[in-house]
Amino acid sequence: MKQSQLFTKTRRNAPKDEVSKNAELLIRGGYIHKEIAGVYDYLPLGLIALNNIVSIIREEMNAAGGEEVHLSALQDPAVWEATGRWDDAVVDNWFKTALKSGTALGLGFTHEEPLTRLMKDHISSYRDLPRLVYQFQTKFRNELRAKSGIMRGREFLMKDLYSFVATAEEHEKIYERMKEAYRNVFNRVGLGERTYLTYATGGSFSKYSHEFQTETENGEDTIHVCDACKVAVNEEIRHEQETCPQCGSKDMRATKAVEVGNIFSLGTKFSDALGLVYKDESGNDVPVVMGSYGIGPGRVMGTIVEVLSDKDGIVWPESVAPFRVHVVRLGDNDAVVSVADDVYAKLQNAGVPALYDDREGLSAGEKLNDADLLGMPMRIVVSEKSLAGGGVEIKNRTEKESEVVATGSLLELFA
Amino acid sequence: MKQSQLFTKTRRNAPKDEVSKNAELLIRGGYIHKEIAGVYDYLPLGLIALNNIVSIIREEMNAAGGEEVHLSALQDPAVWEATGRWDDAVVDNWFKTALKSGTALGLGFTHEEPLTRLMKDHISSYRDLPRLVYQFQTKFRNELRAKSGIMRGREFLMKDLYSFVATAEEHEKIYERMKEAYRNVFNRVGLGERTYLTYATGGSFSKYSHEFQTETENGEDTIHVCDACKVAVNEEIRHEQETCPQCGSKDMRATKAVEVGNIFSLGTKFSDALGLVYKDESGNDVPVVMGSYGIGPGRVMGTIVEVLSDKDGIVWPESVAPFRVHVVRLGDNDAVVSVADDVYAKLQNAGVPALYDDREGLSAGEKLNDADLLGMPMRIVVSEKSLAGGGVEIKNRTEKESEVVATGSLLELFA
Repeated sequence: MKQSQLFTKTRRNAPKDEVSKNAELLIRGGYIHKEIAGVYDYLPLGLIALNNIVSIIREEMNAAGGEEVHLSALQDPAVWEATGRWDDAVVDNWFKTALKSGTALGLGFTHEEPLTRLMKDHISSYRDLPRLVYQFQTKFRNELRAKSGIMRGREFLMKDLYSFVATAEEHEKIYERMKEAYRNVFNRVGLGERTYLTYATGGSFSKYSHEFQTETENGEDTIHVCDACKVAVNEEIRHEQETCPQCGSKDMRATKAVEVGNIFSLGTKFSDALGLVYKDESGNDVPVVMGSYGIGPGRVMGTIVEVLSDKDGIVWPESVAPFRVHVVRLGDNDAVVSVADDVYAKLQNAGVPALYDDREGLSAGEKLNDADLLGMPMRIVVSEKSLAGGGVEIKNRTEKESEVVATGSLLELFA
Repeated sequence: MKQSQLFTKTRRNAPKDEVSKNAELLIRGGYIHKEIAGVYDYLPLGLIALNNIVSIIREEMNAAGGEEVHLSALQDPAVWEATGRWDDAVVDNWFKTALKSGTALGLGFTHEEPLTRLMKDHISSYRDLPRLVYQFQTKFRNELRAKSGIMRGREFLMKDLYSFVATAEEHEKIYERMKEAYRNVFNRVGLGERTYLTYATGGSFSKYSHEFQTETENGEDTIHVCDACKVAVNEEIRHEQETCPQCGSKDMRATKAVEVGNIFSLGTKFSDALGLVYKDESGNDVPVVMGSYGIGPGRVMGTIVEVLSDKDGIVWPESVAPFRVHVVRLGDNDAVVSVADDVYAKLQNAGVPALYDDREGLSAGEKLNDADLLGMPMRIVVSEKSLAGGGVEIKNRTEKESEVVATGSLLELFA
């Protein structure tokens, strides 16, 4: 894409009321726009990055056997009253609204209730199980404060998968499969090395739930990491779990982290409340065993910005970057323009996603600063100097020094 | 996809409170699920069909020069107060909610206001124009009644594009380009022949707006069609436009229709109210000229079901169908299973999207009825009878008679 065609502009400073590092950098880069605290719009580059994360998650959910749906945001109180979660005293972050008739409606902050009710139309026998159903859907949570940028919003995209199986044993298998799928996701988006499977508070049906926590100094949570096993324990259950749950070691390191995913055994809480049963082989009605598995793609994107960026701007992993390459043309003389146009065309033809800074009237400093701020993995500078040096200057975003490569052999880098 | 793996089931009857033909068929086919009146969930097959429509629209918007964004559903009252549209007496279909602090918020029913405000960060000079910005985004409209299935919901997906240009002349060019893009969309989704560019009420800035109206007996609108020009006039402006706006003929045919898209000149209404100006070449501040262009992918999907279905079920155009082919296996004997598995595998390998009815324990009648209800464009029946006849039975959804094709030459049909 030609940068001159991109409607968004970078800016030197984020709005004064923006206190989170991720939103500050993303706003400055023109990736997102803030509507009110905790409510952000995704602009073209931000939407591409978000969709790259969504695609990775979707692939892993499909590979794990998930079927994709899209449930409504507007919520019927009846189904939430049946589980006791309509009450604001029980759930403190509802956004509620009403029909013209006065009937109250909610805005979904999660979707166990409507999906469990829906599945009653489709599950009747043990032969209908297991089922894994997921969606990418906008959640609304009426947070009292919202100071974490796109990492904890009042409105945000969530991937939520729900498992429906016949027995506790089968649930354990699916639960392990989802752990693996989640590990794959965090590896693929570039957070794998600093993301720990973390034991956290369970419910009535299992001792623990599991979070995926990414280490970052701005994290909201404290976790205790066993570096040998690469697992952690959330501070909240530290009193009952003082050693590594895998190797039993007491050598655990306390650190700040942000929860980027969580998986949870629900048991029969929702199927009991809403009457989701199946007939077993003997014809008896048995409640379906459920689990839930969540990742917020926006939170993942915000976390990537928090943990990988440097003083000059964002550093995107290649899998998430809106463009793999940023071709930066310095100067507008014919030779430079001709080579830069040619490099961009070659990358386009080779199917390498490239952003081309073809903007006129900007200084070299302005363009290079923008390239650092925007954070594409590879920068290719075309300038009079690079041409005099024999080609174009190539540099990875995380490297200090660039290297001159002849334009003729440029595509070999992407072979 | 194997039908045995699909969690949704077909059903003989839609819920009794469902009065629209499109929702009735889509619910029976397991394409959608009704939460409350006017609020529907998309199940796996329904989501694929919806996404096929979304992809077609996205391609046409990108081809027309659009840049994709995603704005929030939660709306800041301030920007709507500036245009006078926050007041329920002015806009009668707001859903409103509130932060914990008591601050009111709206749920977006359209997005002129927030996008116009946002563009102030990115448009400052005539060099920044024109810009075409669009999104696929969930709209919320508090309709008093909602009886049209997914054709008029209280919550629905909308593609809305907004154009920002320097002059009225430039606006006319973009407006004509969008007309063409819309025609392309309706042609590609299979509604082109019965969809008419329809002159409708304009605003302060243009005599008319334009709707795309699809002829259907269940339509909410009455239009007057000039069959020679393939354009129409909406009943609402019939008193001022009694002849064909293109050829001047008085020979116009009244018919029922549903609005599947609309395009609208906004002039400087929003840029005046919100201060979106650009500096012209002389350095003067000039308000940006705007237009808006909407299509609801769910409404398009509902309209396709309304106008193309027959007494046996849905009839999907190939471009929208969740799967191009429905392989229906009748009987479970080894020879039949082996050939059916093989046909499905061949289609998979050839990249032909296929649904494979591999379900056991259903009668031939049940399976064939389901295939008709689900409405894939081509049905391939594998049965003892078809094998005795020399292969598999192929039939298009709209044809009465099937044809036996040897499995060896099956793929030639998709070459």
